[in-house]
Amino acid sequence: MVIDLSTVPVSQGTGYPAPFRTKVAGRSRQRVGNAAGLTNFGVNLTTLAPNAQSALRHWHSHQDEFIYVVSGELVLVTDVGETLLKPGMMAGFPARVADGHHLINRSNEISIYLEIGDRTPGDRAEYPDDDLLALPKAEGGYYFTQRNGQAY
Amino acid sequence: MVIDLSTVPVSQGTGYPAPFRTKVAGRSRQRVGNAAGLTNFGVNLTTLAPNAQSALRHWHSHQDEFIYVVSGELVLVTDVGETLLKPGMMAGFPARVADGHHLINRSNEISIYLEIGDRTPGDRAEYPDDDLLALPKAEGGYYFTQRNGQAY
Repeated sequence: MVIDLSTVPVSQGTGYPAPFRTKVAGRSRQRVGNAAGLTNFGVNLTTLAPNAQSALRHWHSHQDEFIYVVSGELVLVTDVGETLLKPGMMAGFPARVADGHHLINRSNEISIYLEIGDRTPGDRAEYPDDDLLALPKAEGGYYFTQRNGQAY
Repeated sequence: MVIDLSTVPVSQGTGYPAPFRTKVAGRSRQRVGNAAGLTNFGVNLTTLAPNAQSALRHWHSHQDEFIYVVSGELVLVTDVGETLLKPGMMAGFPARVADGHHLINRSNEISIYLEIGDRTPGDRAEYPDDDLLALPKAEGGYYFTQRNGQAY
């Protein structure tokens, strides 16, 4: 089915615990894969306002991720440093590679990108810059703890 | 990792048996997901020359698909008819929905799109317009038969 963006809800929510939520303020997503009825992977059309970021810097144990820049500019941050991404550029982040990544909009205009991730069960995410772990819930999705396992 | 398109091979191959191969002549793909080391799903940056098509019209038993139009125009064909897709438009094709789809470039310019599909094992594809079945090989990928199971 063709996606009618005017009917796809815009979500600004995050599952991050309170100390980290402000980091992704300015991020809004349309879950276009879900809108098409897909279940095996998610596709989001995501907008970052100036200074917003895609996520805390993280990597996944089981799930792959891929991004495509639609418009605006984004800075990709990984262990090797920063890379400026322009429209049409792409990047992939394979599961198990322990190199955290995220995108930051350091420009004065909004940035829009597609983000794709699969839904392999048992996934966890590690956050090299933050005292945070994302652990799999039995019913899908994540719960978040400190690195020592304590709840926030 | 950021994709350097200049290093990603351009593939014009197809697994279709001989009677159907000409249908996808004019299609070329860069397997950008593989280039990034992804294994759970594939992402291709695919170019259709004028008159070329993405595939024979088909649907999948287990795997979801999603496409994003990068440039040019494409005609999406499904059971409900034809829809013109322009840059920035998207469409998704959930597993198990028995409505064959493919894309045809009916314009005079090349068309470029992103196609995403997962790799759920045991997938088969049905082709409502052609005497063809794609069946899963034990090692991954497909083999093709006539609808009555006979080899081509």
